[in-house]
Amino acid sequence: MISGEATAHRPGVPAGAPIRRGIGILGATGYSGMELLRLLGGHPHADVRAVGSRQHAGERLDAVWPALGRNRLVLDEDPTHPRVWLDRGVEVVFAALPQGALAGRAGVFLDAGVRLIDLSADFRLRDALEYGRLYGREHPAPALLSEAVYGLTEWCDGNLRTTRLVANPGCYATAILLALLPAVESGWWNGAPIVVTAMSGVSGAGRGPSLTTHFVECANGASPYRVAEEHAHLGEIRQALAAMRPERQALGRGADSPGVALPILFNPVLVPMTRGILVCAAVPLATRASEEELQAVYEARYAAQPCVRVLPRPGLPETRHLRGANRCDVAVRAGASGTMLLVYAAIDNLVKGAAGQAIQNWNRMEAWPETTGLPLEGWGCG
Amino acid sequence: MISGEATAHRPGVPAGAPIRRGIGILGATGYSGMELLRLLGGHPHADVRAVGSRQHAGERLDAVWPALGRNRLVLDEDPTHPRVWLDRGVEVVFAALPQGALAGRAGVFLDAGVRLIDLSADFRLRDALEYGRLYGREHPAPALLSEAVYGLTEWCDGNLRTTRLVANPGCYATAILLALLPAVESGWWNGAPIVVTAMSGVSGAGRGPSLTTHFVECANGASPYRVAEEHAHLGEIRQALAAMRPERQALGRGADSPGVALPILFNPVLVPMTRGILVCAAVPLATRASEEELQAVYEARYAAQPCVRVLPRPGLPETRHLRGANRCDVAVRAGASGTMLLVYAAIDNLVKGAAGQAIQNWNRMEAWPETTGLPLEGWGCG
Amino acid sequence: MISGEATAHRPGVPAGAPIRRGIGILGATGYSGMELLRLLGGHPHADVRAVGSRQHAGERLDAVWPALGRNRLVLDEDPTHPRVWLDRGVEVVFAALPQGALAGRAGVFLDAGVRLIDLSADFRLRDALEYGRLYGREHPAPALLSEAVYGLTEWCDGNLRTTRLVANPGCYATAILLALLPAVESGWWNGAPIVVTAMSGVSGAGRGPSLTTHFVECANGASPYRVAEEHAHLGEIRQALAAMRPERQALGRGADSPGVALPILFNPVLVPMTRGILVCAAVPLATRASEEELQAVYEARYAAQPCVRVLPRPGLPETRHLRGANRCDVAVRAGASGTMLLVYAAIDNLVKGAAGQAIQNWNRMEAWPETTGLPLEGWGCG
Amino acid sequence: MISGEATAHRPGVPAGAPIRRGIGILGATGYSGMELLRLLGGHPHADVRAVGSRQHAGERLDAVWPALGRNRLVLDEDPTHPRVWLDRGVEVVFAALPQGALAGRAGVFLDAGVRLIDLSADFRLRDALEYGRLYGREHPAPALLSEAVYGLTEWCDGNLRTTRLVANPGCYATAILLALLPAVESGWWNGAPIVVTAMSGVSGAGRGPSLTTHFVECANGASPYRVAEEHAHLGEIRQALAAMRPERQALGRGADSPGVALPILFNPVLVPMTRGILVCAAVPLATRASEEELQAVYEARYAAQPCVRVLPRPGLPETRHLRGANRCDVAVRAGASGTMLLVYAAIDNLVKGAAGQAIQNWNRMEAWPETTGLPLEGWGCG
Repeated sequence: MISGEATAHRPGVPAGAPIRRGIGILGATGYSGMELLRLLGGHPHADVRAVGSRQHAGERLDAVWPALGRNRLVLDEDPTHPRVWLDRGVEVVFAALPQGALAGRAGVFLDAGVRLIDLSADFRLRDALEYGRLYGREHPAPALLSEAVYGLTEWCDGNLRTTRLVANPGCYATAILLALLPAVESGWWNGAPIVVTAMSGVSGAGRGPSLTTHFVECANGASPYRVAEEHAHLGEIRQALAAMRPERQALGRGADSPGVALPILFNPVLVPMTRGILVCAAVPLATRASEEELQAVYEARYAAQPCVRVLPRPGLPETRHLRGANRCDVAVRAGASGTMLLVYAAIDNLVKGAAGQAIQNWNRMEAWPETTGLPLEGWGCG
Repeated sequence: MISGEATAHRPGVPAGAPIRRGIGILGATGYSGMELLRLLGGHPHADVRAVGSRQHAGERLDAVWPALGRNRLVLDEDPTHPRVWLDRGVEVVFAALPQGALAGRAGVFLDAGVRLIDLSADFRLRDALEYGRLYGREHPAPALLSEAVYGLTEWCDGNLRTTRLVANPGCYATAILLALLPAVESGWWNGAPIVVTAMSGVSGAGRGPSLTTHFVECANGASPYRVAEEHAHLGEIRQALAAMRPERQALGRGADSPGVALPILFNPVLVPMTRGILVCAAVPLATRASEEELQAVYEARYAAQPCVRVLPRPGLPETRHLRGANRCDVAVRAGASGTMLLVYAAIDNLVKGAAGQAIQNWNRMEAWPETTGLPLEGWGCG
Repeated sequence: MISGEATAHRPGVPAGAPIRRGIGILGATGYSGMELLRLLGGHPHADVRAVGSRQHAGERLDAVWPALGRNRLVLDEDPTHPRVWLDRGVEVVFAALPQGALAGRAGVFLDAGVRLIDLSADFRLRDALEYGRLYGREHPAPALLSEAVYGLTEWCDGNLRTTRLVANPGCYATAILLALLPAVESGWWNGAPIVVTAMSGVSGAGRGPSLTTHFVECANGASPYRVAEEHAHLGEIRQALAAMRPERQALGRGADSPGVALPILFNPVLVPMTRGILVCAAVPLATRASEEELQAVYEARYAAQPCVRVLPRPGLPETRHLRGANRCDVAVRAGASGTMLLVYAAIDNLVKGAAGQAIQNWNRMEAWPETTGLPLEGWGCG
Repeated sequence: MISGEATAHRPGVPAGAPIRRGIGILGATGYSGMELLRLLGGHPHADVRAVGSRQHAGERLDAVWPALGRNRLVLDEDPTHPRVWLDRGVEVVFAALPQGALAGRAGVFLDAGVRLIDLSADFRLRDALEYGRLYGREHPAPALLSEAVYGLTEWCDGNLRTTRLVANPGCYATAILLALLPAVESGWWNGAPIVVTAMSGVSGAGRGPSLTTHFVECANGASPYRVAEEHAHLGEIRQALAAMRPERQALGRGADSPGVALPILFNPVLVPMTRGILVCAAVPLATRASEEELQAVYEARYAAQPCVRVLPRPGLPETRHLRGANRCDVAVRAGASGTMLLVYAAIDNLVKGAAGQAIQNWNRMEAWPETTGLPLEGWGCG
């Protein structure tokens, strides 16, 4: 059951009561899953009916996440047969599973009329060959790739309203694309290499224990990894950048995007914070620009976007101010005598970079106000 | 008394005993001063006779720095009259004072025959006008600027042996210049904008309490500041880059360097670690290069340098492996189809970025082995 | 205007709309003030009309706390003349000022009909002499001490409903007293020394920069301070413990409490976390007890308290699960063959230990449900 | 070959050269193993000939621990046949293996004349039954238990000089026993329950990845675990306390110690630091004492011990001042009208709590100065 109207007339639902959708969460015990639980817990239209976990099936949520207080929902096994969840009234599934764990059975959910918002990389690329090249395996459901909407909310067109499958962008991709979007769309970028260095908090590496995420190994240092052109998320970034370019837009967004060739260099660095991504990007410009011009381009592009804030000079985004918020802070500078644009963007990787943006997309799928249930203010010190 | 030979015959010094110089440390209770104390405490030729502190005069060192155990040396007032220190046998002064606190009386030390290694920015720029422009005040001793040697040890020429005044580079400048030196010297850089993003630990902000360095404000986030072309240390970086370029070298290093015009964009970011700097730099190349070529250029340049290690691929420098060490780790990558060099460098900002490099310079001033008393290995976990 | 009924009929307030009180916050730019802003921002009955700051008067809130997004409220000077705030409709004042900054003018607010919830130590002690002894100055408004209600919400009697002045407990005191309350009230404690070691996050030290709170000084270590019997908050802890004892209760809570003599040893330790207090307390028992008995005493005491959770064995409270929540987690163990009770309690020092408890008290003053506007679940990872 | 004299005459060793022992390290890639490598690398009598690792056999040390710079030693498999190591000149083995991994083959090393310093819990208990009870398995070499010397260096008697097997104490046990030793030996403790709360850095949990040590789980909170009487190390603590009591000492230290019954309550708490242990202990006294008396007892006991420093009032130990040092800082307070002694102790868990104390014990086994090769000063900020 997808349409909101119908829900309001379900037997037992009083007239005038807010629409409530039955929600299922796959991968509920990872960091993004936890964040979905936290945010959907305060969403007026969400009724979380089912939670799945491959590792904690049978345990109660408040045992796995004591922060949740007295939430007594019991974790299911990750359901092979979506039927069970449908019987429990699940209408929308948020999937926060590792790469490759969902794609093969996504169709079963979709065919049963469930709308699916996938936080993994499974449906982000339009091209199954590119997927295979980047992730080293054949895509298990290539037929679904063309219908998935890449859910960078501020860039999504009207397709969100009608789609049944959203591919939520990666956290790095979200911050980088929001930093670059105005410059690329408007044709200011000259096509020469963009250089991006981005710092990520450790929750970005997932909850699976590893030496990399061991406190003693990462607590007091900065570590670059998969730099230059090695990070798999460059695939979705290039694909989106290609589609954003003015000449592409003329062709229609659905056109295949030879984004692979776009020159973007990306240095991800792990730094000792729990959450947050900070992006520092340098974009060579097609023509010299003043800082005022660049600021105006960015402000105009995001003026109507409630979840992006372009900071007035001399402000610079800091991850601490975004903790807990579904917001991206952006600032621009002109450099090298106006030949380079420097952009800075910060997000909470688990909120605007994952669970929050997933809910933002859901809000638009349902035609609710985009920020329904989403905090735009951060926690402050913390 | 400067020459080592003389010292060995001081009355009371047994023949065959190692030469010991009388050392004074100005600013001994800041982070760089503390590091000087730690490292000089293990240096076979150092005999710390006097320590100065504007804030803790009259206190015992082990009260101010309990880590020091039972060091009973009492802190002097920052001496206006160097005579007092000379009488106590001080032959070499390491100054770790804030910007501007030393320059006005440096001459008095020098004229008394003391060799001076200054860790502040006071003597790093050759041009007093540029100093005034960057630091907003007139230089108090412009006559000394031309004789100061800029102590990026791996780049210093023979002047170190004979100079009486060393301007120790800033911590950012050290890491950035070591990252760029081989590419610039060899003519690989094409002169288009270099983009540098660098993360620094909080000790880089000094020991003076401020909201910026308050634990709650900086413990769990990444904060860019003075980005693009705003950071004052771009002055010394540009000056050095200009002097490193092949055409400059032909003119002789002493030639005035119009480095101001060199296009370098620098994004410093404060991240929650106590020590360390990580540099990610992107250098546009004059001709396409393979990663092997670039690796070879870097390995050749640093083959004879004990304090720089060029990591074999796929190694990348991480600040945690440098903690406590007077070493810079460097790695290179080729990007954008060989048109861009990406360089990564990491140091301990208090060691190779401050106290350690100061001692490395002193070792070369005295013609001792360059690494005397300097640890090249880090502390490991910690 | 204090009574809720009246407010609902204010001109211009539609019938059926929730009651909204005009709120003023003194000390809005400290950590507790920030937390008040965050929590009251989501409180259905709060309408923050005025914010005061001694340091940031004239600045906009979102400039001082960028986490707040687009909050355009402008900070007032800390008002000497409450008249200004009354004219702006302030009915309730939350004061998060440093020790001693409010007491002298509290009467002016009270006399104007404002209800005052004070987060400082000014009104926590009933005895002005004890105040003078502990804080080294004469109390500026001793006449108000007897009417202030000590707002440990779970222990407050009906006085909260009618009082105009609440002294919100200190953060350490809150965690320690909630840990000890059931054992003391029930007479299980034998009166021999209680030993408490408690760890606090750095926000507990306030936002004023100091060497103690400098990241480099506190980021990677544990530091005890004012141990044994040196911490001033022992005053309010002893006073409350004395009043909690069964024999005292017989006398009536208002009786003067010779709490000074009660043997309690308290070791506060600063640890590198932004928020949180963890208490480990050891209580010698009047008679041997099994763990089951002790668990039952605690569960019974807190069964009806929504903001305290007694964990079933083998659970132990961890500060990370309480971050952002107005909740105290408690666990008990029997030790030394049942002669000792070990109690563990954790809170978020800025929420249940400060701003959250203040609002919890306000809710009870207004006879609203105790948890109105208060999150009982933590943020999870972060 | 054990005696130092013999070594000096080995063929090829020039007369007058310092004695050098062939060293083998088992478990070299854990945190204690790394620390052994770091410290033995600077020890004048150590010649590390062999390093073993179950996980990294065949890799070079500098690949596993990049901090080590250019150490090209290749890790062996953990040798089942010590013969291989003997052939490479190993005379002394430091074992930093997990619980139970060494005991079964310790005899082979010992019988070959190797001296063995074991950092695990395998040989700490004199009683094989107690071992079985605490660790849930039968001891694989009970015959060796009686000859192992429990290596709390400051308490060891002359046996260290002649033993071939040292059981190095646990890190918590070291800090707790050094805190309690003077009070217990001197008879000040009245035998009623001692309450200890101790905070540990995360390296104390070992290098094996787990959810507990995941940065995001532990970076910003305090977590108690195995509290009250649940921690296995209470076994060695009770055994040592029993042997320290005055009446025991009269019986001779070898007498079986019914330490199990000693009332000590121990709350270990994981806090977000990489290294360090801070102990807060409360000891009920047999007779009332002034703080001066207690201070005198402690100062007298440790006056001749170079690795323990009793801080003058108002000093309190902080872990940050001990980072990297083989030192324990201790402070005492009197409380509850002189009926309770409060003791505070801090160490670096990897140095005085593990690798450093192991070397300290080795120094005494060899009759070298106790602090040979051991830093007594910490790293300072870090």
